[in-house]
Amino acid sequence: MDAWPELDRYMHQLADLGRMSALLSWDQQVLMPRKGAEGRARAVATLRVIRHRQLTDPRLGELLDQAREADLDVPRAAMVRVLAHDRDRAVKLPDDLVRRLALAGSRGQAVWEVARRDRDWEMFRPCLEEMVALKREQADLLGHDGEPYDALMDAYEPGMRTARVEPLFASLADELQTLLGAIADAGPPRRPLFGGAAFPDALQWDFTMRLLRDIGFDLDAGRQDLSAHPFTTTIALHDIRLTTRMDPDDPFSAISSTMHEAGHGLYDQGFDPEYEDTPIAEAPSLGLHESQSRLWENLVGRSLPFWEHYTPVMREMFGEAMGDASAEDVYREVNRVQPSLIRVESDEVTYNLHILIRFELELALLRGELEAADLAGEWDAAYDRRLGVRPPHAGVGVLQDVHWSTGSFGYFPTYTLGNLYSAILWERIASDLPDIDRGLRRAEFGPLLDWLRTHIHRPGHIQEGDDLIHEVTGSRLQHGPFMRYLWGKFGPLYGIEAPA
Amino acid sequence: MDAWPELDRYMHQLADLGRMSALLSWDQQVLMPRKGAEGRARAVATLRVIRHRQLTDPRLGELLDQAREADLDVPRAAMVRVLAHDRDRAVKLPDDLVRRLALAGSRGQAVWEVARRDRDWEMFRPCLEEMVALKREQADLLGHDGEPYDALMDAYEPGMRTARVEPLFASLADELQTLLGAIADAGPPRRPLFGGAAFPDALQWDFTMRLLRDIGFDLDAGRQDLSAHPFTTTIALHDIRLTTRMDPDDPFSAISSTMHEAGHGLYDQGFDPEYEDTPIAEAPSLGLHESQSRLWENLVGRSLPFWEHYTPVMREMFGEAMGDASAEDVYREVNRVQPSLIRVESDEVTYNLHILIRFELELALLRGELEAADLAGEWDAAYDRRLGVRPPHAGVGVLQDVHWSTGSFGYFPTYTLGNLYSAILWERIASDLPDIDRGLRRAEFGPLLDWLRTHIHRPGHIQEGDDLIHEVTGSRLQHGPFMRYLWGKFGPLYGIEAPA
Repeated sequence: MDAWPELDRYMHQLADLGRMSALLSWDQQVLMPRKGAEGRARAVATLRVIRHRQLTDPRLGELLDQAREADLDVPRAAMVRVLAHDRDRAVKLPDDLVRRLALAGSRGQAVWEVARRDRDWEMFRPCLEEMVALKREQADLLGHDGEPYDALMDAYEPGMRTARVEPLFASLADELQTLLGAIADAGPPRRPLFGGAAFPDALQWDFTMRLLRDIGFDLDAGRQDLSAHPFTTTIALHDIRLTTRMDPDDPFSAISSTMHEAGHGLYDQGFDPEYEDTPIAEAPSLGLHESQSRLWENLVGRSLPFWEHYTPVMREMFGEAMGDASAEDVYREVNRVQPSLIRVESDEVTYNLHILIRFELELALLRGELEAADLAGEWDAAYDRRLGVRPPHAGVGVLQDVHWSTGSFGYFPTYTLGNLYSAILWERIASDLPDIDRGLRRAEFGPLLDWLRTHIHRPGHIQEGDDLIHEVTGSRLQHGPFMRYLWGKFGPLYGIEAPA
Repeated sequence: MDAWPELDRYMHQLADLGRMSALLSWDQQVLMPRKGAEGRARAVATLRVIRHRQLTDPRLGELLDQAREADLDVPRAAMVRVLAHDRDRAVKLPDDLVRRLALAGSRGQAVWEVARRDRDWEMFRPCLEEMVALKREQADLLGHDGEPYDALMDAYEPGMRTARVEPLFASLADELQTLLGAIADAGPPRRPLFGGAAFPDALQWDFTMRLLRDIGFDLDAGRQDLSAHPFTTTIALHDIRLTTRMDPDDPFSAISSTMHEAGHGLYDQGFDPEYEDTPIAEAPSLGLHESQSRLWENLVGRSLPFWEHYTPVMREMFGEAMGDASAEDVYREVNRVQPSLIRVESDEVTYNLHILIRFELELALLRGELEAADLAGEWDAAYDRRLGVRPPHAGVGVLQDVHWSTGSFGYFPTYTLGNLYSAILWERIASDLPDIDRGLRRAEFGPLLDWLRTHIHRPGHIQEGDDLIHEVTGSRLQHGPFMRYLWGKFGPLYGIEAPA
């Protein structure tokens, strides 16, 4: 195809614009001084509109049409598929809506930060109402078969539909409730292992940096910083930024944050450098991305072999604060199941119930079955119903997550999809690498990372997520492996057995 | 003018693009992981080209033509003047050269960092040769009256010409050599006050943060970080970033860096908010900008009244390390004159000789009188001739400054212009605020900052720098006030007298 170099330039330019967006957003969350918010909101909006104009440029449409008729190799065909998908969505939206969405998102986030701190739902409510109206407008312009939520979820999980997610999540929720009930019946909640011991921030930081080096995150091509809400941003293939946070009473908060974000970071450091700055140097979906973060956080970082190695390391670093905790003690601690208010601190059993609550609420908002103004009350009722807990204030209730403030509706399901994918992958990994536990016990993560690099990271978005998982594991999206994993772990931990 | 709103949108968009450039560059110097350099270079180049296309958009030309014929108020007329000046320069350059300059600048800077660390002139030489060729190409396209340097200097100091700077700097150099000779004749060089005392980084940091608060830098609309080479970046009117650096043996390095950068930062926090995101919310020139940094660094931060306040503060913070140093001792220490190799660490007497060396060398490069390949040798010869010192290696010689690696030719003179402007301003300030010394002695910086806000900061680029200085002080660019200031300070310090 003669015009490939021209198409390639478009791709690279779009990648550069994406990089700028990423840095603006990273800095906004990590460093930006308080009064910089409004100026930043305008800069972000301008950049989004510039990117939108590039993407909707008629010349790019011509080039993509030519490319679709050309005889391309597999990677190039994939680049065209992914870029065309982005463009097809973009051309349906006017510049003005792109700008309004960007401004509402930045401003909404700034208001949310204060509202959350002040536990003030009423302060945030008008932002949410505006945002829901904008998202419904966006969904209708993007087009859908009567389910506006699909049009939004498609941005994060291409091709995924509510009609598939809804029954899947419902079955999952039923089985989780069964497991949770069995755990509750097994005895009173366990108490935290380290009540009142002090784990200095500086040592926690050193420990997380050691973990990053151990598992293979390249610190010359990335960095770790602190932020109130841990996240990962990809500025470029060789510039991947993680954040973590410290709780002086509980070192496992920083450890699990770092392991989680490093899972994202390892993915983004692992794309094939030949595809750098093309549309396939990215995960096929956020669900796939989350499969990597949850795999490192949970299947590795909450496993007994992992703690057989790191418990003595922690004892050496933290000294007395660790008491005489054994690896088994720590393993039980990091797998303590307890219905709670906060998603990001929840255990593996209840986590997906937190997601289900959000999914049902945002689905109702998009369907027009729930008014944004009524969200806070419905949130509390859902927590009561699903988890038996009730938020004492909005700061630990409806205001706990940033997503809705920035307009990320349709994003939450990807967390649960990631959990399901991670368990599907882990069954395959355990079969391909029978010595995996012995390796983890020695902090030898190389074989695992190599496996992920080969099968998941390097291919990037060369095919859609569910197809990639199918090719690699023979299995498609389902909750069976995840429930097997949970029973396999929590059965012995709580002395309970899966229903036949 | 009916089309003003459209013109206004162009201005705001250009401001947003400038903001992104600023953040990309700040992050590159403060945080970016090593391997991110190449991706960042491409992103910066793409952004520069986007900005260049906006600026050269024919529609903007039409709007500016209409505006020049309209009856505009003073601020709007100034916006049109400044934007038209930028655009007139931009239309002379093809996109491709803009891109090549940006890439060569980013890549040159990355090579320079390693070359400087490794003291390896030969590693950097090819970058410099390429850059000089690009800058000569740029200068010829921009157009000039036989002096290509003028076309480049105009980007930093609009309207300033080599024909004015060259004789001014020559007279200044003569008078500085006279002063320097008198100081040398007055006795052997003084020894540093604190040989071997330790000033912990954390305490130095606290001290510089206290200084920032004391002098009125708004830390909700800016921040301070660490970097190898202190600098200031304006991300937005309410997001001004300073950096400083620590030398554990010498607290005055951090103090003078912070005072210098805060001088820049106070300026950029002080523009009239009504002009935010317009072309006049900026300094008229880098010389004016530097007048503010040097004023706070030297005329305030190296004055006796300042140290009468801060010597006891330092004693309280640093304890024993301060020994029994009096305010007078510290004042003498921070004004120790000593010809040396490094510009940024040099005293007020020799500083402008460092600048003169760079100015003469880059002028010769642009005139084609000096080959880039010969620069290192000529550098050493010039230091020997002007300052009587010879760099033992390129790391403290020709490679010490970043400017040439990024293509900033024509920038160095603005440092000396800043020094001259700062002294002109200070004579006026001393006359308008006769109690200034008494205020400094109590760390009451409010009246000084108010004066600068009113006369220099708030007006921004509403008129050109030299005109603004003339309006405020009655004086135009000259070196008389600066030499009077130097003799007034160093005469008593060294027991010498100005020639009649």
